[in-house]
Amino acid sequence: MAHDETTPSAPEMSWFAWGDPERAKTLDPGLRDLIAQVLDADVHEMPPVDEADVDLPPSRLTDHLRQALAGVAGPEHVVTDDTVRLRRSGGKSTPDLLRRRSGQADPAPDAVIRPADHDQVQRLLELCSAEGVAVVPFGGGTSVVGGVDPLRGPFDTVVALDLRRLDALVSFDRTSLTAVLGAGVRAPHAEELLGEHGCTLGHLPQSFEYATIGGFAATRSAGQASAGYGRFEDMVVSLRVATPRGTLELGGAPASAAGPDLKRLLLGSEGTLGVITEVGLRVRPVPETVLDEAWTFPDFATGTEALRVLAQSDTRPTMARVLDESETFVGAAMGGREAAPGCQAVLGFEGTAAEVEARAALVRELMTAAGGTRLGPEPVAHWRENRFSSPYLRDTLLGAGILAETLETATTWTGLLPLYEAVSEALKGALVGEEGGAVVMCHVSHTYPTGASLYFTVATAASADPLARWDRAKRAASDAIADAGGTISHHHAVGADHRPWMVSEIGPLGAEILRSVKASLDPEGVLNPGKLVPERS
Amino acid sequence: MAHDETTPSAPEMSWFAWGDPERAKTLDPGLRDLIAQVLDADVHEMPPVDEADVDLPPSRLTDHLRQALAGVAGPEHVVTDDTVRLRRSGGKSTPDLLRRRSGQADPAPDAVIRPADHDQVQRLLELCSAEGVAVVPFGGGTSVVGGVDPLRGPFDTVVALDLRRLDALVSFDRTSLTAVLGAGVRAPHAEELLGEHGCTLGHLPQSFEYATIGGFAATRSAGQASAGYGRFEDMVVSLRVATPRGTLELGGAPASAAGPDLKRLLLGSEGTLGVITEVGLRVRPVPETVLDEAWTFPDFATGTEALRVLAQSDTRPTMARVLDESETFVGAAMGGREAAPGCQAVLGFEGTAAEVEARAALVRELMTAAGGTRLGPEPVAHWRENRFSSPYLRDTLLGAGILAETLETATTWTGLLPLYEAVSEALKGALVGEEGGAVVMCHVSHTYPTGASLYFTVATAASADPLARWDRAKRAASDAIADAGGTISHHHAVGADHRPWMVSEIGPLGAEILRSVKASLDPEGVLNPGKLVPERS
Repeated sequence: MAHDETTPSAPEMSWFAWGDPERAKTLDPGLRDLIAQVLDADVHEMPPVDEADVDLPPSRLTDHLRQALAGVAGPEHVVTDDTVRLRRSGGKSTPDLLRRRSGQADPAPDAVIRPADHDQVQRLLELCSAEGVAVVPFGGGTSVVGGVDPLRGPFDTVVALDLRRLDALVSFDRTSLTAVLGAGVRAPHAEELLGEHGCTLGHLPQSFEYATIGGFAATRSAGQASAGYGRFEDMVVSLRVATPRGTLELGGAPASAAGPDLKRLLLGSEGTLGVITEVGLRVRPVPETVLDEAWTFPDFATGTEALRVLAQSDTRPTMARVLDESETFVGAAMGGREAAPGCQAVLGFEGTAAEVEARAALVRELMTAAGGTRLGPEPVAHWRENRFSSPYLRDTLLGAGILAETLETATTWTGLLPLYEAVSEALKGALVGEEGGAVVMCHVSHTYPTGASLYFTVATAASADPLARWDRAKRAASDAIADAGGTISHHHAVGADHRPWMVSEIGPLGAEILRSVKASLDPEGVLNPGKLVPERS
Repeated sequence: MAHDETTPSAPEMSWFAWGDPERAKTLDPGLRDLIAQVLDADVHEMPPVDEADVDLPPSRLTDHLRQALAGVAGPEHVVTDDTVRLRRSGGKSTPDLLRRRSGQADPAPDAVIRPADHDQVQRLLELCSAEGVAVVPFGGGTSVVGGVDPLRGPFDTVVALDLRRLDALVSFDRTSLTAVLGAGVRAPHAEELLGEHGCTLGHLPQSFEYATIGGFAATRSAGQASAGYGRFEDMVVSLRVATPRGTLELGGAPASAAGPDLKRLLLGSEGTLGVITEVGLRVRPVPETVLDEAWTFPDFATGTEALRVLAQSDTRPTMARVLDESETFVGAAMGGREAAPGCQAVLGFEGTAAEVEARAALVRELMTAAGGTRLGPEPVAHWRENRFSSPYLRDTLLGAGILAETLETATTWTGLLPLYEAVSEALKGALVGEEGGAVVMCHVSHTYPTGASLYFTVATAASADPLARWDRAKRAASDAIADAGGTISHHHAVGADHRPWMVSEIGPLGAEILRSVKASLDPEGVLNPGKLVPERS
């Protein structure tokens, strides 16, 4: 089997785990036993099956379709090799990884198509719409909500549309501080390309090492420095989007009142309305100075209240997060360090030296008045070193029989602690019994003037049926979020996994709007079936 | 005829002019002659006709419809009096005022309906959709783009849906700094209501004294302090919207990745997709300190470049504007003062005393390095005193036979000066000849990291056919904007007047999206016919 091409900046990800197979680790047996004791559960090693033993359904691509697709993208870019199809058979949620580790890779795409440019994407969508071929856009493949599952809907054939070759800096405007990037540019490569001009996006989600610019746009991503750089959608100044009905070119002006902002309808559309091929972005000069500070608070309520004060002031850090008691304790323990009691917060400031110093001084006053104690920069340095490595730790735990998964939401400041309690209780309540309990941790990592996100991490014994076990917990948490008025996702997006909660999120008439736009842009319904858009009930 | 009810905070506007009839002025004859000389034109007084002589078409409301509408809103809130209908017969563009001054008030609504609350609006829309009655939502009536023209489209009957009774602070959350306001709350009343809680919206467009919260949301308004408080759409955290197909309740969380942000589809929808009845807004504490500074620059290019540096820095003023040479000169002359040569900029800072001082100090360094000279606060004080009075001046000029109108756009920093030149040339080119020339002035009043707005003011002799004269100039300017890649409106919106440029703005497929959403929410097409949404070509 031919090996897949990769972009210069990142190797192909493991088929059964996050990221670079070279960076996988095994869990220290002493630590594993300690975790089992805390969880009050038996844990058993869960090695993945051999790749050769994976149950990958054969490609159903007909010769007719192969020729037609090859006529657009070139025969070498219509790939049906099992190695390649397996690596486009889904994303990176814990259920995704559990399925593939156990040898289950059905559904898989019938082919992986690798177009070279916007025009090829446009022609491929017209072709697939005419031929009735389901199209699943695929960027970094980092979805944790089933967003890239190759569901075929009512169609015989489903293809993964791999956008990795749309890998260029299309244009750069130093005066306006804007750049147009191809949808397939991975985030580290984007930083390289912009770095040559002295600029940065400042967008660093946990998926940074693999995720693509198009994926960020399609899923309304938020990076760890969102307090300073904004959410990804707020950086987008223009979009080029291919649809079965033609191409959309939206935006360009810094602001407009020429009707609704249609860019916002494509941002977050998750490949169901069109395929984003180019993204015009606001960029920033690489900051002159980065200043980090850790703080400690007696408890989570005090820590979140301090972050509220910062978010509502005119002088904010570039990055601000606070961990609850459990995450503070576990984070330090996993790193072999001892945490201060209570809750840890990490702040980062970026900008010119003068700006950073002025902002940090004002913030220190606010944090101290809010009950915080300054710890110095060391815990932030540790966090920065490990900021993209949690998914590797998850794989390590999974190999040792410990299921670790995350979920997230956001709500108003008033609703934040009640939502925190409700979701924590729902998770713990769903994960009790003979199979042991769960450790539930949480942090606030994205703050806004009116509210904040909550990011939960759950660890529990995988048990004999880890998929069913997690499904129960996830449903309980999602229902608790919906009942408490939180959003079903702050930055993971909807995909297949959150789709059942979309009507509660936007109402039946909101769902009708999404269906009407989809009918207009994708009349045959070939774009990413089974994702995001609720079916008519 | 019965006199119309008014909200506590503002009197009814004049039927032929902006604002409060008590505040109208006449033009000093010496100044009028000077302007005529500069314009190289004859100017003649243009008094409005008597209200009794206005050609107002009689109401076509049938008894059947009157009863049905009264069944929802109450008989006293289905108003067909001429006084009331005249004052809902259009907005406040110069062409609007020219028509009404000359006694032309056709079209006029067949009735003005004044619902009490969301549920009445919802039931009225269902009724009008079932009965085939065109509905024109009416808030402050300050549109300058024909947004509230009572066009009946294919329907026999058109009603103005006056939202002024939706005038309450629905809820207030001090912790989250959010407030839900009724769509009919006028901006000064909103400030009173929020002021009781020590808060402000900080949204001060030129229409402030009359415009409503619902109108701001429906038109993507931007206020004079947008650099600090953001555009109105950026303050909106939730929306309640009545449509013929039911009610939409959107938003609430401070941020979300649960599919596209559907709020953004209703923001800027200008009453064509639904009627916004309640708006959840981010509010801010009333600032402790306001610090004003005027600056002067040798020319407009240097002044705009300085504002670019500020907009791209992390330390910004709350308000920043720079006037071109003409507007600097004329502004001072009209105020009886002498301006420094070159271009004037005004900056405002709001916040805590410590924050304001820190920001102002950093900004002074940047402005000085960019070639600016500090003038002190006096010119800003003058501007603040007169910030809402330009529309009165326009009426004064119109009465003296001088047509004064504004138009606006936005583009990237790179495109800003070329767009400035192109629009200026287009306006001057369209306003030459026997009827005299034009004075074209411009300022930048909204800045963003990637670009800025341009706001043009044009003064020219009204001539024998002022409507045709302005139409020629407006078309030339709009074509120049579209050709140069600017947006057809930065904050005035689309209405009827900019609709011909919408396909150039969003493309034929973007127009198709708007039509599909409209078909979904307003299947009979009764909502604000002839506005915003381009017809299928």
